[in-house]
Amino acid sequence: MSRWEPDARGRLERAALELYSERGFEQTTVAEIAARAGLTERTFFRHFADKREVLFRGAGSLQDFLVTTLAGTPESVAPIDAIGAAFEAVGFLLQDREYSRLRQAAIAGNAELQERELVKLATLSAALAETLRQRGVADPAASLTAEAGVAVFKIAFGRWISDTGQQDLAQHIRESLDELKAVTAGRS
Amino acid sequence: MSRWEPDARGRLERAALELYSERGFEQTTVAEIAARAGLTERTFFRHFADKREVLFRGAGSLQDFLVTTLAGTPESVAPIDAIGAAFEAVGFLLQDREYSRLRQAAIAGNAELQERELVKLATLSAALAETLRQRGVADPAASLTAEAGVAVFKIAFGRWISDTGQQDLAQHIRESLDELKAVTAGRS
Repeated sequence: MSRWEPDARGRLERAALELYSERGFEQTTVAEIAARAGLTERTFFRHFADKREVLFRGAGSLQDFLVTTLAGTPESVAPIDAIGAAFEAVGFLLQDREYSRLRQAAIAGNAELQERELVKLATLSAALAETLRQRGVADPAASLTAEAGVAVFKIAFGRWISDTGQQDLAQHIRESLDELKAVTAGRS
Repeated sequence: MSRWEPDARGRLERAALELYSERGFEQTTVAEIAARAGLTERTFFRHFADKREVLFRGAGSLQDFLVTTLAGTPESVAPIDAIGAAFEAVGFLLQDREYSRLRQAAIAGNAELQERELVKLATLSAALAETLRQRGVADPAASLTAEAGVAVFKIAFGRWISDTGQQDLAQHIRESLDELKAVTAGRS
């Protein structure tokens, strides 16, 4: 095998998601993922610490992106709209619905992965609350706004991947935030 | 030892929480918990499946209580206020702040327990959303209202256990819900 591997990471990721969906996360080995991608196990471990990592490598950059976007929003924007705008920006980045769907299915089928996903979201919420506090938002408003943002994202994401229409994730996020506003105003 | 054990469960629970806080959850054995409570390991296992169970046995009844209370609220009440009232009722039940504080400290010090707590809250949110759907609330409003309720509870609970004042949990829940309403209305 050549040492030059164009997009090895992407091939491994695709192979892993296919296998997780075909035979389940637990039943898939790293050797099988590497074989499906036409690469070696050693190459796999150059890119990922383990087979869980394939599903979660994006979590850190998602959080960094959200924190940076939120921190950069003018302070004149109300916190709830600043957090809404940050998640909407994520919505524009996540365009590959089929990838997101396979990833979510793999996670839904495994308790340990679900736990890791919940921890990831809780960590994200804490980081966003801290960013809001640095913008001068007091508590509990900062924590509540962060929790509201994560809740909107979670629900919009679920609707997006089960949606058969053309609406993108950003639109779902906008809609869910509007719905949360209606709900808390007692209009829903 | 007498076969008659007045409040064996309560004594085991208190002993466990004391030990978790003194030496950490992982470093505590069931034998030590039983010894501290003046009971046998066999008695411990009559009441709890394992030492994690001591911290989570209330989760099922909390969920049942919330679902029943929410289902029994008149449909004329807006969903967000129905869920607020259900959590407030929990606030009246949970009066032992010292117990809640010790429990939270044990959970905060152990990643596995934190995961279990997050799973418990996610399960609760799903059950409350389902209850709202049965009351005729459509999605995403049902899921968003349930998530909002759990977020308010989580944050109010954290403020209550770190509070040194006299405000009870129900008051914290009322305050946090009002704050969420202010936040989503762009007033905070």
